[in-house]
Amino acid sequence: MSSIASEAARAALDAKTKPHGSLGRLEELAVRVAGIRGDTNPRPLRSAIVLAAADHGVAARGVSAYPQEVTRQMLANFAAGGAAVCVLARRADAELRVFDLGVGSPTADISAGPAMSRERAAECVARGRRVAEELVAEGFGLVALGEMGIGNTTSAAALAARLLGADPAAVVGRGTGVDDAGLARKVAVVRRALAANEDDDALGTLARLGGFEIAFLAGVAIGASARAVVVLLDGFITGVAALVAERLSAGARSAMVAAHLSPEPGHRLVLDALELEPLLDLGLRLGEGSGAALALPLIQASLAILDEMATFESAGVSGRDR
Amino acid sequence: MSSIASEAARAALDAKTKPHGSLGRLEELAVRVAGIRGDTNPRPLRSAIVLAAADHGVAARGVSAYPQEVTRQMLANFAAGGAAVCVLARRADAELRVFDLGVGSPTADISAGPAMSRERAAECVARGRRVAEELVAEGFGLVALGEMGIGNTTSAAALAARLLGADPAAVVGRGTGVDDAGLARKVAVVRRALAANEDDDALGTLARLGGFEIAFLAGVAIGASARAVVVLLDGFITGVAALVAERLSAGARSAMVAAHLSPEPGHRLVLDALELEPLLDLGLRLGEGSGAALALPLIQASLAILDEMATFESAGVSGRDR
Repeated sequence: MSSIASEAARAALDAKTKPHGSLGRLEELAVRVAGIRGDTNPRPLRSAIVLAAADHGVAARGVSAYPQEVTRQMLANFAAGGAAVCVLARRADAELRVFDLGVGSPTADISAGPAMSRERAAECVARGRRVAEELVAEGFGLVALGEMGIGNTTSAAALAARLLGADPAAVVGRGTGVDDAGLARKVAVVRRALAANEDDDALGTLARLGGFEIAFLAGVAIGASARAVVVLLDGFITGVAALVAERLSAGARSAMVAAHLSPEPGHRLVLDALELEPLLDLGLRLGEGSGAALALPLIQASLAILDEMATFESAGVSGRDR
Repeated sequence: MSSIASEAARAALDAKTKPHGSLGRLEELAVRVAGIRGDTNPRPLRSAIVLAAADHGVAARGVSAYPQEVTRQMLANFAAGGAAVCVLARRADAELRVFDLGVGSPTADISAGPAMSRERAAECVARGRRVAEELVAEGFGLVALGEMGIGNTTSAAALAARLLGADPAAVVGRGTGVDDAGLARKVAVVRRALAANEDDDALGTLARLGGFEIAFLAGVAIGASARAVVVLLDGFITGVAALVAERLSAGARSAMVAAHLSPEPGHRLVLDALELEPLLDLGLRLGEGSGAALALPLIQASLAILDEMATFESAGVSGRDR
């Protein structure tokens, strides 16, 4: 974060032909992005949505409304351009990059023990960091995180409960739409997962309770943040990946922007821990990076305001008289 | 409103490759627009921002942080493309149309008596209806309302107080940024305006307390609504114009969408009266149609989802299993 760039952006906005601060959070957004980029005038950013898919052994415990095979089927749908995030990425002029982190080769069931080895978790994180580096080399200035994986709200809830010291009932939600019985099953499964996996450091916790895509996305967030690339979070699961990133690499959160607040009860807790305020609150609970794609035009608009608006002086407009 | 088109759009969304309702308010938006247009699949709409500017005699009462000459200066800024709404309209791919409703020839001071004659108010409304007709003829499917006029939050607050039976202190806000003394002056001026202007019917109330741009925008809303064109509201002042439209032509509100919630305390009251829920809440208080331009990509995205997403059947994705 460059406070010099932030302050210069703030001063530039205050000279524009509008009352100070009258564009509210849009102005805060431009100032934050200027600070992340270390650039007084970043202009609308070349943007990618990194969508990571993986399967979860815990899906066998009846925690999702959909069968596990949907993860693989959705990979084909992403490739064909028919999924929601494909449509929304096109509208937002963002490039969609899909990564298969183990679809069809699920993690072990977290309700019985660790999801993966510590080494495997580190590999997934490292792969994410490499992808971020590649995106930087290609000239992307913003990376949005997206995910797909039947059962991954359960994994994310277990991680959030452990990392935040929260009760499972406070972080478990309906995901893509389980009924009351499914919700009760999810809470019980998360309790079992916490009992079956002892306390550990951040990487160990990720390995025990995480998913391959969550580890990978944490790595993307760490790598992007280290290279002054804006990290746009989607919903609860990418929020948990971001929380893992911050625990693995303190300060990573300074490059993050929260796109929206989902109805998952754990999402607000995660965003509070990251000190992020979401831009949208539209009841989105799809994932895939869909909410990030919807918020992206707000970020680009904030940067266009910073770049293109006239100043009081250039436009010959009178300032405040009281 | 066509409930047949709404229901067909709802059914189409439910067949898409996503859990039912998982795109939250975005889905409701697509369904509403389908109903307004009477079209099961309206696709992203050709959109205009109608920005009406006028001056207000009440500006002489010290109710704004800016001198009245700013209204005219901003007209030049709109023409040169340097104002916030110019930048945001370009980002949102909306056409900006600016109308001078009496800049430099203000209404009479509402704190001393009627702003204008009943005939003049009717003329402004009729002009707005004609403009809406012209936009329909040009093929626009959505019209966003915007306004500029030093002093016009005071006029809007007086109209809201009278039409809603609200206390002036509950509807008056800081506008583009008056200080505490200015806020107290505004409340006192609105009280004087209500005392100086007796109760009347909707058109009479508009003539007594309104502004030329508010009357014109009410006409645009009525004309657009009558022709199944979506009316996208911006902030408090356009919200009051919409409320006037509904009082003049019951049912006009069924074509309206509220872009955002501004910090003006009267805005929520006005939207509640219109039974509209705003899409954004970003602390915007600039006007010009800037908030409408920021919300427009959400509407277009909702229509792209309806048009472009694959179905479970077409994509070969399994449905719910519980």
